[in-house]
Amino acid sequence: MSKNWEVKSSFLARNTFNPIRKYVESLPAKPNQAKTLIPLNIGDPTIFGNLQPPESAINAVTKATLTCANNGYSPSIGYKKTRDALAKFYSRSGMEFTGNDVILTSGCSGAIEIALTGLVNAGDNILSPMPGFALYSTLLKGLHIDVKLYKLMPERDWEVDIQHMISLIDDRTRAIVIINPSNPCGSVFSRDHLQEILQVAEQFKIPIVADEVYRDMVFSDAAFYPIASLTSTVPILSCGGIAKRFVVPGWRFGWIFIHDRNEIFSKEIRAALHSLSQRILGPNTLIQAAIPEMLKETPQEFYTSVMKVIEGNAHLAYNSLKNIDGLNPIMPKGSMYMMIGIDIERFTGFESDLEFTHKLYEDESVSCIPGRCFSYEGFFRIVLTVPEDMLKVACCRIADFCNAHRYIANGKCH
Amino acid sequence: MSKNWEVKSSFLARNTFNPIRKYVESLPAKPNQAKTLIPLNIGDPTIFGNLQPPESAINAVTKATLTCANNGYSPSIGYKKTRDALAKFYSRSGMEFTGNDVILTSGCSGAIEIALTGLVNAGDNILSPMPGFALYSTLLKGLHIDVKLYKLMPERDWEVDIQHMISLIDDRTRAIVIINPSNPCGSVFSRDHLQEILQVAEQFKIPIVADEVYRDMVFSDAAFYPIASLTSTVPILSCGGIAKRFVVPGWRFGWIFIHDRNEIFSKEIRAALHSLSQRILGPNTLIQAAIPEMLKETPQEFYTSVMKVIEGNAHLAYNSLKNIDGLNPIMPKGSMYMMIGIDIERFTGFESDLEFTHKLYEDESVSCIPGRCFSYEGFFRIVLTVPEDMLKVACCRIADFCNAHRYIANGKCH
Ligand SMILES: Cc1ncc(COP(=O)(O)O)c(C=O)c1O
Ligand SMILES: Cc1ncc(COP(=O)(O)O)c(C=O)c1O
Repeated sequence: MSKNWEVKSSFLARNTFNPIRKYVESLPAKPNQAKTLIPLNIGDPTIFGNLQPPESAINAVTKATLTCANNGYSPSIGYKKTRDALAKFYSRSGMEFTGNDVILTSGCSGAIEIALTGLVNAGDNILSPMPGFALYSTLLKGLHIDVKLYKLMPERDWEVDIQHMISLIDDRTRAIVIINPSNPCGSVFSRDHLQEILQVAEQFKIPIVADEVYRDMVFSDAAFYPIASLTSTVPILSCGGIAKRFVVPGWRFGWIFIHDRNEIFSKEIRAALHSLSQRILGPNTLIQAAIPEMLKETPQEFYTSVMKVIEGNAHLAYNSLKNIDGLNPIMPKGSMYMMIGIDIERFTGFESDLEFTHKLYEDESVSCIPGRCFSYEGFFRIVLTVPEDMLKVACCRIADFCNAHRYIANGKCH
Repeated sequence: MSKNWEVKSSFLARNTFNPIRKYVESLPAKPNQAKTLIPLNIGDPTIFGNLQPPESAINAVTKATLTCANNGYSPSIGYKKTRDALAKFYSRSGMEFTGNDVILTSGCSGAIEIALTGLVNAGDNILSPMPGFALYSTLLKGLHIDVKLYKLMPERDWEVDIQHMISLIDDRTRAIVIINPSNPCGSVFSRDHLQEILQVAEQFKIPIVADEVYRDMVFSDAAFYPIASLTSTVPILSCGGIAKRFVVPGWRFGWIFIHDRNEIFSKEIRAALHSLSQRILGPNTLIQAAIPEMLKETPQEFYTSVMKVIEGNAHLAYNSLKNIDGLNPIMPKGSMYMMIGIDIERFTGFESDLEFTHKLYEDESVSCIPGRCFSYEGFFRIVLTVPEDMLKVACCRIADFCNAHRYIANGKCH
C-alpha cells in the first residue's frame, strides 16, 4: 500500500476543448454593472424567449409521452417510422433517399461525431472551413486526427478559396467538411459555388461531410441547395438536426443522411455508421416518435416567422454597424449569425479581437464571440436571434464603444 | 480524375461491435412457426407492456414539455437543478455528495463512455467482469484499449475471483469495472465482498468505475450497497441511469456520480469528465427538467411492484428450470436476469451455448442470449421482466426442448 494515488486524465479528455466555452470562462470578472447584459454570444435561439418552437412540436412530444408507447430502446439507428418520415420530408427530385439512408443521432453534434469517426483514423486529416464552427476540432483533436483549415473569403461573401482548399489535400485527407449555411459567417453558398466544391471532391475522390444544421434557414433573396442535390457521383454524408430550425437545441436530436448513388459507401461506410450508432443507442425516443407529426404539422408560417426575425435583425445590425468607422460587417444570407471585421489599427485600448470583445463586455455589457474562437482573428460574431429592441441597444453600445476607443492621430481621426 | 472512389471505414468503426446484436442477427431464418415467439433476449423492460413507467415520470415530462422553458441548451454537464436533485436523492449518510459531483449523460452507456475514456488511453487496460455486459469492449476495443476479464464464480453466487482479478493487474491498468447488481448474472454483491474489491483497488491504487444502472433493483432478501458508501479512500465513478429503474430505456438519460473524498479526481479527472461532456452537450433537456419531480413523486409502491414481478419470475423460472436434467440455473438476487448453465454433454444435437440457443429458437420459438455474448460459454441468459404466463410457457418449452435433445447412452439416460 506504499504507492500513492495518482490518477491521470486521458489524452482524449485533455484534447477535447471547446474554444467558445473557454472564451466565455475567460471573460472579465464583471460586465458594466450600470448596463443590462446583452448576450450576443451563444447560438441558442431559445434564450431570449422571443423565438419559440412550433406548437406542433410541443403537441407531438406531449402525445408521444402520454401514449406510453415510446419508452423502450429504439433500434440504435432510430425508429424506422422516424427515419422514413425524415427521408420523405427532405427528399427532392434529383435527391431521393429513403429511411434506410438515415441514421438518427443525439443532436447534429452526434451526427458529426459518427460521420467523421466512421471515416477517419488517427493520423488522417479532414478539411474544414476557417472561419468555422469549432466542434470539428473539439471532436477530433483528442483522437489524433488533424483538422486542416481552408480559407473562406470575406470579400466574396465567404466563398471557399478553392485553390487554398486544394493545396491542403494530401493522401491522408479523408473528408471535406462544409458548413452551409455557415456558423459563424451566415453565408449561404450558391449553386455554382457548391459545384466548384464538388469538383474538388470528385477530382481527389474525397467524400463530403456537409454540416447542414442550418438548412433552409436562408433570407428571402437567397436559396439553399443541399449539396447532395447537385451531384450524382460524390458520396455525401449530410448532418443535420432540429436544434435551430425548430428552436429546440436542448432536445438533442439530429441525423445523418447518406447520399450515395453509386454505392461507394455501401462497401464499408454504412456498416461503420451503424456500428458507431451502437455506442449511444439512438436519441431520445419521445422526440423520435414526435418527429413525423412535427414535420407534417408545422405550418410554413412558423418557419417564415422565425426567418423574418433573423433577417430583420441582420439588416438592422448590418445597417447600423456598417456606419461605424473601423467596423466591417459582412451581410449574411442565412443561418443566425453575422461576422464583423475590426480594423484594429483604427482603435486604441485593444489590440486583438479577443481584447475587443473583452473590453466591449467590460465597458458596455455586450457579449460577443471573438473570431479566434472560429480560428479567424480580426473579426467578432454576433447572434441574430435576439429581440429587435435589444439588438438596437447593443448596436448603439457598440457604436459608443468604438467611438470611445477610436484612435486619434494628431487630434484628427486616423 | 483517374483515381477511383474507395472510401474505407475507420478502425474505431470496424472494432465497435455489439455481440448481442450480432447474435440476434445470426439467428436461424425462422423460429418455429407453430409457436408464438417468446423473446427472453433483450434487456428492455418495456417490450411486453406488463411493466410501465411510473405516472410521475409521464406527468413530469409532459409538464416539462408544456411549460416550454426547457428547450435551450443545458450546460454540457446538465442543469444544476437536476444534478442537485439526483445528489440529494442518492446521497446517504457516509456517502454525501452534491450536484457538483454529478455529470448528466445520454444513458448509462454515455456515462460509461465518458468515465472510461476520461481515465484510459490507447495501450492501457481496464478490468471488467466475465460474464459481463459487453458494452465495455464495444466502447473500448476500437480505441486500442484492452478489456481484461476477471472471473466471476457461479458456485459462489457470482462473486469475483479476487486472486484472478489481482493476477490481471499490470502497470497499464487504469480502472476496475464492477457491475452490481449484475447483467447478466442477476447477482448482488454483499457488503463484505464489496470490501474485498475495494481492498484490491486500494492496494493497487486503481479507481473503480461502478456500473450501478441496476442499483436498488434487488429482491426482498438482498441489500444493495453503493460501493462508494463503503470506502473513504478509493475514488469511484458510479455510472447509473433511469433506463431500468424507471422502465424508460428509450429516454437515454444517465449520470456519473463522482465519489472522491480525498480529492484524487480533483487534479485531472473532474476536468476531464467536464471536457468530454462537451462532445455531446448533455442529455435531452425535457427529461433533465422532469427528473426532480420524478424522483420526488414516484411512490415506493412503484418500485416495489416492479421488483415483485421480477422476483416472482426469478423464483418461477428457477424452480422450473432447476428440475431439468442438464440445466443449472443460478438463482439471482436482483437486476432482471438469470444465467442458466448447460451441461452440454448431457445433450445431443448441439455442442455449445450458441447452438443450444439457436436450436431452442428454431424448435420452440424461445429466444435467449448465449453466454458467449457475455464472454462466458456454457450458459445462457434469460430476461425476467416478461409476463408470468409467458415465462411459464417458455420454461415448459425449454423443458420439452431439453427432453427432446437429452443424450441417451445405451438406451438409458446418460
Ligand atoms: C454548424 C453547426 N453544426 C452543428 C451544431 C450542433 O448542433 P446540435 O445542437 O444539434 O448538436 C451547431 C450548433 O451550434 C452548429 O452551429
Ligand atoms: C450493466 C449495464 N450497464 C449499462 C447499460 C446501458 O444502460 P442505458 O440504456 O442507460 O445506456 C445496460 C443496459 O442494458 C446494462 O445492462
